Amino acid sequence: MQVPVVENVLKLNDEVAALNRQALRAAGVFTIDLIGAPGCGKTALLEATLRQLCNELRIGVLVGDLTTDRDGQRLARWTGDVVQINTGRGCHLDANQVRQGLARLALDRLDLLVIENVGNLICPVGFDLGQDVKVGMFSVSEGDDKAAKHPYLVYESALLLLNKIDLLPYVPFDGCAFRRDIAGLNPRVQVLELSVANDDLAPWLDWVRAAAARMTPALGSPT
Amino acid sequence: MQVPVVENVLKLNDEVAALNRQALRAAGVFTIDLIGAPGCGKTALLEATLRQLCNELRIGVLVGDLTTDRDGQRLARWTGDVVQINTGRGCHLDANQVRQGLARLALDRLDLLVIENVGNLICPVGFDLGQDVKVGMFSVSEGDDKAAKHPYLVYESALLLLNKIDLLPYVPFDGCAFRRDIAGLNPRVQVLELSVANDDLAPWLDWVRAAAARMTPALGSPT
Repeated sequence: MQVPVVENVLKLNDEVAALNRQALRAAGVFTIDLIGAPGCGKTALLEATLRQLCNELRIGVLVGDLTTDRDGQRLARWTGDVVQINTGRGCHLDANQVRQGLARLALDRLDLLVIENVGNLICPVGFDLGQDVKVGMFSVSEGDDKAAKHPYLVYESALLLLNKIDLLPYVPFDGCAFRRDIAGLNPRVQVLELSVANDDLAPWLDWVRAAAARMTPALGSPT
Repeated sequence: MQVPVVENVLKLNDEVAALNRQALRAAGVFTIDLIGAPGCGKTALLEATLRQLCNELRIGVLVGDLTTDRDGQRLARWTGDVVQINTGRGCHLDANQVRQGLARLALDRLDLLVIENVGNLICPVGFDLGQDVKVGMFSVSEGDDKAAKHPYLVYESALLLLNKIDLLPYVPFDGCAFRRDIAGLNPRVQVLELSVANDDLAPWLDWVRAAAARMTPALGSPT
């Protein structure tokens, strides 16, 4: 009995994700599903990104958390286009929650949407939300084995971020082993090192600019 | 249709967890379910604990990970009583996986069992494994908001650990805010600060000694 129910849940999720993707592409919004462990620096990265790019790009954020609106409040200092989604005991965002979040954003005014998923390296990977790409985020304080231990995120990400390189003098981390594990799992994925704490994130900002530039509103899309 | 299936899965889990608890108590084994985010230092803590207590207590470990046996290999340097459980895409251990792990340990020879759950602050909280206590683990590099953002773990833990205090000079962390959030959620839970990197874990070792001393084999238990 269980397997068909699980399959139906995933099938329904995929159908709603397809609707999300259709709406986002029609509006010319490049969409990132940002996935990382609790405390890897997802919200801090988005704060810094909004601060640095707010005069270039209109960026919206959907942010998932179990219960608090702390991340939403932090991000609201930098953009009005932010929606906090509370999942309760839910360990990931699903396409329907994202759909409800999208209804509260003026998509036609956005260039980029970042969906900051619930802090969790496992469950969010299995759910399509309608994003263009998944971006996986690690930090050096988590240890150099975390890519190898979370292969599904590595397989499915278009980009991996390694944050907190400012802590490298103070924690054990073999960057060569970390990159070797990634290359063994997904040779095509790009890896960018950054330090949000030191505002050292130029390669990420360039990646975001290029991603947003790839999108233009679809011909004939609703205005 | 979905709710009854989920209820049945949890009910079955609870029934198997009760069997695990019965077997562990009959053998006089105090059992900890250790829950923390990826990279908070769970395996490093257990390595240090095994090294420091191996002449006092016989400690077994069940360790959950998606795919690799890296943690099991690390722990096997310090004890023969270690079983690696791979969950595949599964985001937590369940009671049946633990039951299979227990079958591979000589429980009568153990004083203490630590179940190192899959690195995840959310999903493991909802599954009884047959443990005596849940211990939640955070680290300062994750940020001071992580207890507030994971209230269910705080509610259900008998002890919370805050690791990596050696990194306090290098990361923003308000220890007062962290403890205030915890007190607001669960005033009864004990909080211990430690640095596994600096081998600064005496209060944790004392807690483990006291926990193991509370257990004696049940009268009339099978030999």
